[in-house]
Amino acid sequence: MPKQNKKVSQKPGISPGTLVFVGKKKSDKISIKLIDYTETKFEEKEIKSIEEVFPFKDTASVTWVNVTGLHETSIIEKIGAHFDSHPLILEDILNTEQRPKMEDFDSYLFLVLKMISYNNHDTEMGIEQLSLIVGQNFIISFQETEGDVFGNVRERIRASKGKIRKMGTDYLAYALVDAIVDSYFLVLENMGEQIELLEEKVMLNPLPKELNTIYRLKHDLIYLRKSVWPLREVINNFQRGESKLVKKTTIVFLRDVYDHTIQVIDTIETYRDMVSGLLDIYLSSVSNKMNEVMKVLTIIATIFIPLTFIVGVYGMNFKHMPELQVEWAYPLLWVIMILVGFSMFLFFRRKKWL
Amino acid sequence: MPKQNKKVSQKPGISPGTLVFVGKKKSDKISIKLIDYTETKFEEKEIKSIEEVFPFKDTASVTWVNVTGLHETSIIEKIGAHFDSHPLILEDILNTEQRPKMEDFDSYLFLVLKMISYNNHDTEMGIEQLSLIVGQNFIISFQETEGDVFGNVRERIRASKGKIRKMGTDYLAYALVDAIVDSYFLVLENMGEQIELLEEKVMLNPLPKELNTIYRLKHDLIYLRKSVWPLREVINNFQRGESKLVKKTTIVFLRDVYDHTIQVIDTIETYRDMVSGLLDIYLSSVSNKMNEVMKVLTIIATIFIPLTFIVGVYGMNFKHMPELQVEWAYPLLWVIMILVGFSMFLFFRRKKWL
Amino acid sequence: MPKQNKKVSQKPGISPGTLVFVGKKKSDKISIKLIDYTETKFEEKEIKSIEEVFPFKDTASVTWVNVTGLHETSIIEKIGAHFDSHPLILEDILNTEQRPKMEDFDSYLFLVLKMISYNNHDTEMGIEQLSLIVGQNFIISFQETEGDVFGNVRERIRASKGKIRKMGTDYLAYALVDAIVDSYFLVLENMGEQIELLEEKVMLNPLPKELNTIYRLKHDLIYLRKSVWPLREVINNFQRGESKLVKKTTIVFLRDVYDHTIQVIDTIETYRDMVSGLLDIYLSSVSNKMNEVMKVLTIIATIFIPLTFIVGVYGMNFKHMPELQVEWAYPLLWVIMILVGFSMFLFFRRKKWL
Amino acid sequence: MPKQNKKVSQKPGISPGTLVFVGKKKSDKISIKLIDYTETKFEEKEIKSIEEVFPFKDTASVTWVNVTGLHETSIIEKIGAHFDSHPLILEDILNTEQRPKMEDFDSYLFLVLKMISYNNHDTEMGIEQLSLIVGQNFIISFQETEGDVFGNVRERIRASKGKIRKMGTDYLAYALVDAIVDSYFLVLENMGEQIELLEEKVMLNPLPKELNTIYRLKHDLIYLRKSVWPLREVINNFQRGESKLVKKTTIVFLRDVYDHTIQVIDTIETYRDMVSGLLDIYLSSVSNKMNEVMKVLTIIATIFIPLTFIVGVYGMNFKHMPELQVEWAYPLLWVIMILVGFSMFLFFRRKKWL
Amino acid sequence: MPKQNKKVSQKPGISPGTLVFVGKKKSDKISIKLIDYTETKFEEKEIKSIEEVFPFKDTASVTWVNVTGLHETSIIEKIGAHFDSHPLILEDILNTEQRPKMEDFDSYLFLVLKMISYNNHDTEMGIEQLSLIVGQNFIISFQETEGDVFGNVRERIRASKGKIRKMGTDYLAYALVDAIVDSYFLVLENMGEQIELLEEKVMLNPLPKELNTIYRLKHDLIYLRKSVWPLREVINNFQRGESKLVKKTTIVFLRDVYDHTIQVIDTIETYRDMVSGLLDIYLSSVSNKMNEVMKVLTIIATIFIPLTFIVGVYGMNFKHMPELQVEWAYPLLWVIMILVGFSMFLFFRRKKWL
Repeated sequence: MPKQNKKVSQKPGISPGTLVFVGKKKSDKISIKLIDYTETKFEEKEIKSIEEVFPFKDTASVTWVNVTGLHETSIIEKIGAHFDSHPLILEDILNTEQRPKMEDFDSYLFLVLKMISYNNHDTEMGIEQLSLIVGQNFIISFQETEGDVFGNVRERIRASKGKIRKMGTDYLAYALVDAIVDSYFLVLENMGEQIELLEEKVMLNPLPKELNTIYRLKHDLIYLRKSVWPLREVINNFQRGESKLVKKTTIVFLRDVYDHTIQVIDTIETYRDMVSGLLDIYLSSVSNKMNEVMKVLTIIATIFIPLTFIVGVYGMNFKHMPELQVEWAYPLLWVIMILVGFSMFLFFRRKKWL
Repeated sequence: MPKQNKKVSQKPGISPGTLVFVGKKKSDKISIKLIDYTETKFEEKEIKSIEEVFPFKDTASVTWVNVTGLHETSIIEKIGAHFDSHPLILEDILNTEQRPKMEDFDSYLFLVLKMISYNNHDTEMGIEQLSLIVGQNFIISFQETEGDVFGNVRERIRASKGKIRKMGTDYLAYALVDAIVDSYFLVLENMGEQIELLEEKVMLNPLPKELNTIYRLKHDLIYLRKSVWPLREVINNFQRGESKLVKKTTIVFLRDVYDHTIQVIDTIETYRDMVSGLLDIYLSSVSNKMNEVMKVLTIIATIFIPLTFIVGVYGMNFKHMPELQVEWAYPLLWVIMILVGFSMFLFFRRKKWL
Repeated sequence: MPKQNKKVSQKPGISPGTLVFVGKKKSDKISIKLIDYTETKFEEKEIKSIEEVFPFKDTASVTWVNVTGLHETSIIEKIGAHFDSHPLILEDILNTEQRPKMEDFDSYLFLVLKMISYNNHDTEMGIEQLSLIVGQNFIISFQETEGDVFGNVRERIRASKGKIRKMGTDYLAYALVDAIVDSYFLVLENMGEQIELLEEKVMLNPLPKELNTIYRLKHDLIYLRKSVWPLREVINNFQRGESKLVKKTTIVFLRDVYDHTIQVIDTIETYRDMVSGLLDIYLSSVSNKMNEVMKVLTIIATIFIPLTFIVGVYGMNFKHMPELQVEWAYPLLWVIMILVGFSMFLFFRRKKWL
Repeated sequence: MPKQNKKVSQKPGISPGTLVFVGKKKSDKISIKLIDYTETKFEEKEIKSIEEVFPFKDTASVTWVNVTGLHETSIIEKIGAHFDSHPLILEDILNTEQRPKMEDFDSYLFLVLKMISYNNHDTEMGIEQLSLIVGQNFIISFQETEGDVFGNVRERIRASKGKIRKMGTDYLAYALVDAIVDSYFLVLENMGEQIELLEEKVMLNPLPKELNTIYRLKHDLIYLRKSVWPLREVINNFQRGESKLVKKTTIVFLRDVYDHTIQVIDTIETYRDMVSGLLDIYLSSVSNKMNEVMKVLTIIATIFIPLTFIVGVYGMNFKHMPELQVEWAYPLLWVIMILVGFSMFLFFRRKKWL
Repeated sequence: MPKQNKKVSQKPGISPGTLVFVGKKKSDKISIKLIDYTETKFEEKEIKSIEEVFPFKDTASVTWVNVTGLHETSIIEKIGAHFDSHPLILEDILNTEQRPKMEDFDSYLFLVLKMISYNNHDTEMGIEQLSLIVGQNFIISFQETEGDVFGNVRERIRASKGKIRKMGTDYLAYALVDAIVDSYFLVLENMGEQIELLEEKVMLNPLPKELNTIYRLKHDLIYLRKSVWPLREVINNFQRGESKLVKKTTIVFLRDVYDHTIQVIDTIETYRDMVSGLLDIYLSSVSNKMNEVMKVLTIIATIFIPLTFIVGVYGMNFKHMPELQVEWAYPLLWVIMILVGFSMFLFFRRKKWL
């Protein structure tokens, strides 16, 4: 279960813009990576001290600074100071329970997105926050832990594949958002397979542990939905191209991401319907099974209880029980009992219980 | 169950416009058919190599190229190159999990639609993607497998029935969309019959396998809905006639298709209500049946358990049990037991359990 | 159950405007009735051949032609030709599964409505389609079978009651629509009584057949809703008075019909809530009843099973069972058994099972 | 249960504006009361004949005519004629199943509202229709029975409390509407108490009669909602102050009523949620109880059934049963049986059934 | 359970603006605290008589008057008179069941908000109303009891932390609203923990008391939602900055609060989904458990009932029962009985009941 139930600020009423890291410390050390490129030039390096980044701010080349690990607020503070970011933005970056959103601050855009993945043999869904500051010629991205979905984007920049090296920061931002939305499909595919598997199991033999899986999936879908729904509006705002940072050539690509987001939302809704259908099926299967058990009990009991009564009768010790003395009474009783049992059997047949 | 849970791209972050076929390879070979007509002239032929199509691009006659099978991306690429299609469109054609949509690229329209049919003795719903590129005097349609719902349209072109031969590509596009929407009615009719049949079965004698059928129908309706809902907006955009490719005379026909689409959506919603009602009825029927079983068990048990106790009493071997010596004790006991049984019976009568 | 699951066209892709009757042939012969009136003059006659109607087209008097029975497409075709109707309209008239709608063709309005009634001892809801072509000085109405809800309207025309004879075709159209909407109240009243009756039954003694009635009502409400919902928009369009055929004096009356339609929709929603509440009550009642049955079984069984065990003990044939020889053992055992039974009884009392 | 399922007109198609009383005749005699006031002057009298009212129509003083009982249509007709009311309004006044609404006829406003109250020891909700004709210097109110919620308003007019005597008919109309909305809070408060009481009962010991109460509450909430929802729009239209009859000083008060209406609707929705939650709790409690019953049955049965079998074995009359002859066999068997019973007990303990 | 079901006014129809305290008297004495500050000056004091506050009304410094306890209407009346508040506002302040809202009276803003907290070992949610009158240079806040969430705000004012001392009343109002919204996160965090805890319990061993907790949480979420939903619109109106009292620099902060409110609403919806999922899981777990119980009963009963019958047969006292005389009959019967029992066991195995 994704642990998202942490709160924004420990003390209601503290000053806005006070930088406090909110969330679980998922990464031990902070690492900063820098990629700087133009169409012809490419540089990639691991940064030790955040101050090394500052000179790149005003170069014409596209600079992508990726900060991993958020628990050292001083680094965030320095970046904020150097890149003129609004204090509330820095607070948002550090609060990992933020809702996906986009804010336009004229000279830069601020985006909050969620990276989602399945770990631990596909039974645990992880949600990680990604914040993007998109400036004229730099992008700063903040993520909580090592490992992201941007491997291919980096590869495309390195190998100068496609037109990424020819475009500006808006295209890079698009590429990052696109990579995230694409990764949702991986999560959904994984879920789809789990649902299909579950369907078969639940139909054939519903076990209590399937119930847990259904509940977990339902749970994951709730969180997935919560992470993706706001994205729709985010990308819609993004593609409307009102910001002067987004060039017209990029908009057609953003429209494509928008379509994909709608598709993700559609699929989530479909899965929600299917999972809640699964629960109905599970309950019905359990109910059917119980019915079957009840029928067996009833058949056995209703056949033998009257017979046991009969044999009980002739086990009584009354002095005067004429039947007991009759020679053919015992075999006759057997005949009677078999007839009783058989007629019961026919009764159940007629009732379609057998 | 329609297998739609495949994802869009294998690797998040790959370059947009990279052509990768996504979906199950449903057709072995690729076949290309060409129909070319004006009011007076008609030509239909099977194409071997895609290059044969190119000369038709700029003729005044209406040309309809139908490509079946999508797994050879090179053909799609050549068509894209020759007909100046945006790379993202080609990506969409190849991704068979696309959402129905319409995009207007000034010189051509791009439509994605879903063909739906029932195979395999009406128990398996198949969804196939149809992409349409509608240009000034050509239409290129892409479908996944052999077999479509356009037989009548072809017949009308061949026989010059109705006004299809007198109209342009917009009317042909309308005819194709209309044929698809009409085919949904066939699917719905089929479903309607299945639901009616199920209703009777579930009311009379609910069996576990009916549960599977209910679930399958629910499932199919979810997918059907997912395929038809976006169509509403697609056709609405289409009929608004903002594209210069759609002539005014065609719009009244598009309005008719729009009405049909609304009707399809209405019917889907109605069926969804009915199927979920069916599940309630199923569960209630099962519950009723179990109730009946329980009552039989209870009646038999509650009548005979006390009687068995009584006969047990006189089966005891105490030395001093005065009743055992009394001559009329045995017949008296029978009288008592019959009275007990009968009063139980009356009790159940009064409780309306019989 | 209303059989509405028939489809629009047998073959996807046939030419639009091809006249095919879709639906069940409910009437054997076709009858055409004509009413022609001005404020001072009145004429009513049964028509043999459709051609007799044509001269009335251009007279100043209001002419109402009512066609009953739709299976002879030639008559519809002739009317269409003479009154300049769009082919798609004729197709809509013949397709009895049409959605209620209004279309404005400048020189005439086209309306599709549904007449709903309860037949067969109030257990079968019938839905019949009524199409109206409303011209400057003629109205042509098409219905599927004999028998409609317009008896009062005809009477008002004949007797010149109210202002109907003083008004034009728009007021006549209003009168017809109003009669249809009023008839929905009759259907709803009927349903309301069924629901009230059912409520009592279900509370007191839930029988399986009530379940069928609940399901049937639910079903009927689904279809009723499907027929009435679009009417809202139809009448709204009608009353907005954008058509030059609708005079301002008629609009206030249309607003009244609109209010009634909203009231019908409100009541349908209320009934839907109530019927689904009924199902809950039904299920709860069944569950309560089963609970009661279970308790009786449990009480009888738990009291007598231990007692039967005890008497079984003293029915054993061990040579050395000292108790059997004791003189007061038998009455003592009775005392013990009565105590056991009584303490069980108290236990159940305390548990509030009795 | 509020009996609201009566219909609007007995015969579909009768002339609009025909005055027919629709509803249950709740009051035997018709009484008309007149209050006439200016800031300085006050007159209140019981009217015998409706004609006495007419002179007040054109006086400058504010005149409030309250008509109780609607079954004498002639009185309504006379009022309608003298006060120039549209025939459809008179029809609406007489049809007690009207939906709350407001209509603006320039020279007067027409409002339909519902008065709701709990009678009969709080188990029966009554809905009564109140129609208001609000003119320049007169208000005519129509109610079905004696007894209303306007006692305080009359008192304020008599005692000249607040500013009611200084204001016009719009403020009086506001005061009446406000009194009605306030009375909804009384109904809701009553309901709230019933719900709270029910919660406790259902949690502790769910009885079948609670089910009826839950259903009744659900029912009442459906009707309450139906009566209050349209009010929202009514008051909204009223406060927008488009009518020249509503003065600006009154609007701030209407906004306050509007807020209260929203609050009523909010509370209704909350109660609906809570009542449907109650049903879940009820069902769960019943299910829990049944579970408990089942467990007791199972424990008793599974402990004693095997034991009874054992004692049955030694009750057999075989000639050769060596155990029977052994002296310590009987006490040994007791030991064995106690061990069996005890291990069963431990088994249930471990299963957490005890 | 939050007791909110109290009504607005005891008597429908009383004069608007009549000051009546509605709600439970939660505080015994009334305390008034005053904080007055500019950037350089700070004064904080407890007020005895409300008249001491009046001089601060027209000073340039920011004055925050906090009134705790609402049951002395005379104090409210005096404040209202001195600060020119509309009578309806005073009525709203005293009615603690008010819906959150904002009203703009040009010279001051009026806000109603809800403070929510968990008391009593986290099982009782308390809702307290906070009303704010925000003027040009004074804020008057009204709360029901001692204890609020503004400790940090006061601290920031005292210590001149952040920019609160440099800003006007609009920023102070923002700080108060922000503190309230932040406190919702505390409540939600608490709830999240309860839900997580419950999840584990319900999965492992569903007890009836868990049901109560689920119901309580559901209940709390209903009330929380009712309190937070309208806040969305309140803050939206607030941030739109249409009031001349709200400065542009404050708007960016209000946008931040708005985001937080959306996040709170999102989380409430998520929790609602989860809690209703919990109920499903609870019911399924109970059902599963019952199934298990039934199976044990059935297995024991169906194995031993037939065996008991068999031993009953040979307990009969017929004179002529040949089997009884056979020497190896007894051991043979044991063999038969063991076989019967074992084959039963195998049957259950095959049925997967074991």
